[in-house]
Amino acid sequence: MSAPKKVVLAYSGGLDTSIILKWLQTEYGCEVITFTADLGQGEELEPARKKAELLGINPENIHIEDVREEFVRDFVFPMFRANAVYEGLYLLGTSIARPLISKRLVEIAHEHGADAVAHGATGKGNDQVRFELSAYALDPMIKVIAPWREWDLTSRTKLIEFAEQNQIPIAKDKRGEAPFSVDANLLHTSSEGKALENPADEAPEYVYQRTVSPEEAPDTPEYIEVTFEKGDAVAINGEALSPATILTALNEYGRKHGIGRLDFVENRFVGMKSRGIYETPGGTILLEAHRGIEQITLDAGAGHLKDSLMPRYAELIYNGFWFSPEREMLQALIDKSQENVTGTVRLKLYKGSVHCVGRWSDYSLYSEKHVTFEEDAGAYDQKDAAGFIRLNALRLKLIATRNARVKK
Amino acid sequence: MSAPKKVVLAYSGGLDTSIILKWLQTEYGCEVITFTADLGQGEELEPARKKAELLGINPENIHIEDVREEFVRDFVFPMFRANAVYEGLYLLGTSIARPLISKRLVEIAHEHGADAVAHGATGKGNDQVRFELSAYALDPMIKVIAPWREWDLTSRTKLIEFAEQNQIPIAKDKRGEAPFSVDANLLHTSSEGKALENPADEAPEYVYQRTVSPEEAPDTPEYIEVTFEKGDAVAINGEALSPATILTALNEYGRKHGIGRLDFVENRFVGMKSRGIYETPGGTILLEAHRGIEQITLDAGAGHLKDSLMPRYAELIYNGFWFSPEREMLQALIDKSQENVTGTVRLKLYKGSVHCVGRWSDYSLYSEKHVTFEEDAGAYDQKDAAGFIRLNALRLKLIATRNARVKK
Amino acid sequence: MSAPKKVVLAYSGGLDTSIILKWLQTEYGCEVITFTADLGQGEELEPARKKAELLGINPENIHIEDVREEFVRDFVFPMFRANAVYEGLYLLGTSIARPLISKRLVEIAHEHGADAVAHGATGKGNDQVRFELSAYALDPMIKVIAPWREWDLTSRTKLIEFAEQNQIPIAKDKRGEAPFSVDANLLHTSSEGKALENPADEAPEYVYQRTVSPEEAPDTPEYIEVTFEKGDAVAINGEALSPATILTALNEYGRKHGIGRLDFVENRFVGMKSRGIYETPGGTILLEAHRGIEQITLDAGAGHLKDSLMPRYAELIYNGFWFSPEREMLQALIDKSQENVTGTVRLKLYKGSVHCVGRWSDYSLYSEKHVTFEEDAGAYDQKDAAGFIRLNALRLKLIATRNARVKK
Amino acid sequence: MSAPKKVVLAYSGGLDTSIILKWLQTEYGCEVITFTADLGQGEELEPARKKAELLGINPENIHIEDVREEFVRDFVFPMFRANAVYEGLYLLGTSIARPLISKRLVEIAHEHGADAVAHGATGKGNDQVRFELSAYALDPMIKVIAPWREWDLTSRTKLIEFAEQNQIPIAKDKRGEAPFSVDANLLHTSSEGKALENPADEAPEYVYQRTVSPEEAPDTPEYIEVTFEKGDAVAINGEALSPATILTALNEYGRKHGIGRLDFVENRFVGMKSRGIYETPGGTILLEAHRGIEQITLDAGAGHLKDSLMPRYAELIYNGFWFSPEREMLQALIDKSQENVTGTVRLKLYKGSVHCVGRWSDYSLYSEKHVTFEEDAGAYDQKDAAGFIRLNALRLKLIATRNARVKK
Repeated sequence: MSAPKKVVLAYSGGLDTSIILKWLQTEYGCEVITFTADLGQGEELEPARKKAELLGINPENIHIEDVREEFVRDFVFPMFRANAVYEGLYLLGTSIARPLISKRLVEIAHEHGADAVAHGATGKGNDQVRFELSAYALDPMIKVIAPWREWDLTSRTKLIEFAEQNQIPIAKDKRGEAPFSVDANLLHTSSEGKALENPADEAPEYVYQRTVSPEEAPDTPEYIEVTFEKGDAVAINGEALSPATILTALNEYGRKHGIGRLDFVENRFVGMKSRGIYETPGGTILLEAHRGIEQITLDAGAGHLKDSLMPRYAELIYNGFWFSPEREMLQALIDKSQENVTGTVRLKLYKGSVHCVGRWSDYSLYSEKHVTFEEDAGAYDQKDAAGFIRLNALRLKLIATRNARVKK
Repeated sequence: MSAPKKVVLAYSGGLDTSIILKWLQTEYGCEVITFTADLGQGEELEPARKKAELLGINPENIHIEDVREEFVRDFVFPMFRANAVYEGLYLLGTSIARPLISKRLVEIAHEHGADAVAHGATGKGNDQVRFELSAYALDPMIKVIAPWREWDLTSRTKLIEFAEQNQIPIAKDKRGEAPFSVDANLLHTSSEGKALENPADEAPEYVYQRTVSPEEAPDTPEYIEVTFEKGDAVAINGEALSPATILTALNEYGRKHGIGRLDFVENRFVGMKSRGIYETPGGTILLEAHRGIEQITLDAGAGHLKDSLMPRYAELIYNGFWFSPEREMLQALIDKSQENVTGTVRLKLYKGSVHCVGRWSDYSLYSEKHVTFEEDAGAYDQKDAAGFIRLNALRLKLIATRNARVKK
Repeated sequence: MSAPKKVVLAYSGGLDTSIILKWLQTEYGCEVITFTADLGQGEELEPARKKAELLGINPENIHIEDVREEFVRDFVFPMFRANAVYEGLYLLGTSIARPLISKRLVEIAHEHGADAVAHGATGKGNDQVRFELSAYALDPMIKVIAPWREWDLTSRTKLIEFAEQNQIPIAKDKRGEAPFSVDANLLHTSSEGKALENPADEAPEYVYQRTVSPEEAPDTPEYIEVTFEKGDAVAINGEALSPATILTALNEYGRKHGIGRLDFVENRFVGMKSRGIYETPGGTILLEAHRGIEQITLDAGAGHLKDSLMPRYAELIYNGFWFSPEREMLQALIDKSQENVTGTVRLKLYKGSVHCVGRWSDYSLYSEKHVTFEEDAGAYDQKDAAGFIRLNALRLKLIATRNARVKK
Repeated sequence: MSAPKKVVLAYSGGLDTSIILKWLQTEYGCEVITFTADLGQGEELEPARKKAELLGINPENIHIEDVREEFVRDFVFPMFRANAVYEGLYLLGTSIARPLISKRLVEIAHEHGADAVAHGATGKGNDQVRFELSAYALDPMIKVIAPWREWDLTSRTKLIEFAEQNQIPIAKDKRGEAPFSVDANLLHTSSEGKALENPADEAPEYVYQRTVSPEEAPDTPEYIEVTFEKGDAVAINGEALSPATILTALNEYGRKHGIGRLDFVENRFVGMKSRGIYETPGGTILLEAHRGIEQITLDAGAGHLKDSLMPRYAELIYNGFWFSPEREMLQALIDKSQENVTGTVRLKLYKGSVHCVGRWSDYSLYSEKHVTFEEDAGAYDQKDAAGFIRLNALRLKLIATRNARVKK
């Protein structure tokens, strides 16, 4: 790979990506363009602008964008249509944000005629894969710089030294090692590493930043209603809201009731297991709500097909293959299933739990007439079941007959 | 089908199966053998013996058995090795009990030279299918009598009349309609029908019989440790217990903390949707515990394969195909995966929730050396990730190149 | 079910459906509308009109239609996009025609205000299921009459008697039993039953009606080129043709070279195994051609996902679930994959075989630059493979390390 | 990775692996142990011994083994139980041999206290992955040397120079570039590269080394019978044979009749497409035979489950994951299905084709009594089909009712 000339950096404004910024300038002598996205991580972005300017970035090379609506509408919601969970429990909060960042990095590179993009993910994690697969899928000629895999700043001490040598301001609390590493966006906050590395030890309460503990949550349940149209949440308690606004509101409900905490050991794409603490307050409510509305609006054949493909779909997102033909094919299948997933669910929130306790819809497939214990009104002839069972049993009988025959 | 001569009836001792008993005697004039199983439903069984005798059953034709250990060891535990949930949420508590009952019915039929078995499931539900597929798979020549699909006792009034005409004792509270229908065993209690038929309405608290409400549960979390060997729970807090004893103990923990309630609309095999309220206190804890121990002992390849097949496996059990070659094939695959699923998890129980907060095992695949944020000790070369990503990206790049070419 | 008043009958003009026509008139006293479709079965249809008139059908109640283009365009081609084969070998020639017939039956019923449709499939086969599931999916209130499951004309003798009593003309060769039963359309001809019922015996040559025997086929191979656009064949040897015309032409190539014969024992949806002799000359060529063009235009991720879902898709079609949400979901996924399946393949036809021997496309993903044995021109760095392999191996190493540890 | 001290080399005796042998000695100064396996590639192995001695290998460090029986019994046959084909057509002849070679390399390394193994696969293909994943799975501490990814002998000229400088004998026909590259074993011969790199061009006849061309095959069909026990072939025409002997005999039948040629473009695990010409004469016959015996002995539920997992299983073998938990899990499932796959098939071999034309078994599930067109003898009540269809249709009716309702 030839040296990059102009590079778009995913820039948070924090110490690590500031060091990367400087390192790119000094190591490659290349022009740096910064991209800072508001994904709902809950931090002010304007300081990132000032910091970039301080590090010598030309103002027209500084991009700061609020992408929260795009994030929820085009990434989070499509994923929730699938009820996607990775390895049974993880709601993919980090995974789903990476393709959007890469997409904007590549688009900005094209605007500026840049030949490279750069990110601050390490060589051990999944995020490097997600950033880079997305970038390559969107521009096969783009170069991707991953400083953590290249440089020799392999300890905190060396990083701080480099920062000092390059006049990068260092906040007091960044001098020492952080007790764990955090990633956040509108969907979730993840914490991992260092203090959390022993999966036998319960994570201390101070790790949780996004939710109150269930023990501190209100002693009285709260009920909310979430309305869906074609598989996407569109209103809470009857009030229509935009995608990002809905997720923000659900996050607040979740935070208050201690909902969406997960202590998890997962399998990384790069081959090892890692332990993470995830908080997905709004997403956890959204998943329960979506399952609830599907219960009455989705047919068994559609639902079972979807269920059987969900693990594959979740694995693709986790592994960084959002921009792949197979993810898009699965999305076409999933979206097709959601055409009538429209209606409202009632949810009970209480001390760490969310449960669907009611659901109704004009699009409901639930037929009280068919299921009722009351005497039939002709909707269903119980005698049909005899034939249904006998034909389903036929092959089992033939097996049993064969087995009896050959054992003689 | 010619008329049955001797029939083994799944007999609970309750009013409905007593009516069936009498109806079989009068309708078919056949000899009736009763089978009453203790599956952990929490009822005395000896009254069933007296009732059967009262209805004229020969004492040697009355079978009362405690099958709890067999139930948990040979049915519940194999199923939990798969983390089986139907349609995302239902733990299959009713489904998994039916094949065992059918197996014993057929075995008792063979002992007595009976040519038929009979059950009290209706023509609208899944249980008829489960009973009958199991029976036919075990004996292709057996006759199965399902009185609810045959007789004309299609209303409560007619049933009561028939009971009165036949000197069947009727408990006072059985004269009227029950507000809903209940099934229970060591794994769960289900409630459905009548008062619960509108899925928009929250189920009233009195429906729940097996768990305290989360609001009434203790205000302080409780921690327990569950130990697994080859995928099966073998000890709680270090005390070795038999399968049924473990599930009984977990049920008590779950009951106390309000764990395992589910309000659910599901797709029946016979084609309609129905709404059920399920309580699976111990099973819910067991599932979380099993997932926890798999997190560190199961490889990604094994786990993802299992996850992708779980929906199919759960569907087979739900639909009544326990005794089918495909369920046995999947079981062989699942059991193969569990050879090293051995170790202990720590669980937090609190007001309706159970969460795994720690796990450890001699069989762990978790390697702190590989995952650590600390400087590498040679276990993992971050530069390998570059090649890994580039080859994973190659096909995506070829697609992007092609797409760019053809769009020109 | 109340008695039907006006019924649309799938009418071939042959003896069996003529008997059904009369039986519907006499048994139910209902008005009969006939529908005769040209699906490419190779029979004159006008005699069916005369026969229907002779049996008293009002001319405006006689529908004769050429549906060959619709059949290939909307049913056969979508299915071939999936490379659908049932149980590894069967190209679904009968299965795919039934939904179209049911669709037209229901549409004609709606035009005439009829309340029922009727078909001539027996109670043992798959076709009854396919006809009826399709009809019910398109009109949940429609009645379906399946005379073979209802009447007592259960032997050839009784059928002939009924025909004679009702002045139904009987062709000489229809008086006796046919040695086997035949179904034909533009995609295939199937033969089954009676003389073919022992799966140990080779089918005699006279069973094959659609293809010359490979031994009689030309001694010289013939080469043809088939061009695809978005997964559908659009030209042969450079000549653009309509869907039905292409399949007709491929049938002629296949017939001449003895291609597409299959001697098969399959699993019916209704539970038993049956043996069929299938001839699918054009379809067999089309499948090989489609696979050939996919080889260079379809990405691995897309192709493997498609392959893994194909058996389920084929099973749905075989079982009669064409008009089901899950088939439509899978179709959405498959169609999405075909957007760039455009290009041309070269096929060698010779004595029963068809092989793709060349393929080219503007949409090709094949990159000689990447695969070449020649020295690299920078397209691919072989050292990347080392990292790729090491990370893929990591989890296997961790397993081996664990296994060695616990065995001590 | 520290330098290897003692390395076991997969040594063919040919020029390329002789150069590798020398290169290992000179580059790493390490002791070399050679392993030469008779996998049925059809070459004399003793010359490899002499060549190794000539290159200075200590006689006790030269391992030459006939592993044909192990190859077929423990690798080929288990794979054929699954009817494994990669991407619809490729019988995995190369893929299945690699794990066995790696297994022996690692075992020999352990015997000799060697710390490394080496292979002659290039950095672009799948074989490097297969060799190395297998080696790492069997010994996580083993080093793997892949000279083609390391050295600078990147052209034919440089290789020849190195050989000349190191006194490696060069056969005359090895001085120039081979027109394509060949791999062979008892299951197949593959040819790829150079002259075959344009997938549009038909492969010339001289590429085929293992089969006569169909045009040159006998003008008269030949029939053979193959007998299976538990899914494995055990006899031909009634004569019991060992696994390798059976495959050898089937190869001769296939060769003679021009069976098993495949011109194919496939997706490599490392990300690019490549074109190969495969000849799998005996394997192609074996696959058709195995499918034939499964048709009557395997239940629909078992067969459909197997079919749906086959693509995943084949992909695992192709990608080199033979020694992975997920392959072993799938094998457990597949082997479970084969318990009654016992019986005999009759095959017709003619000019490039093999077709099953008859099959019989004591374990047959085919029931003429159930399928017959003749009047029923009570085995099957056609009226059962009505109930079967109505319950299968119920959910489709509910959908249609809903759709009609919401469209108003």
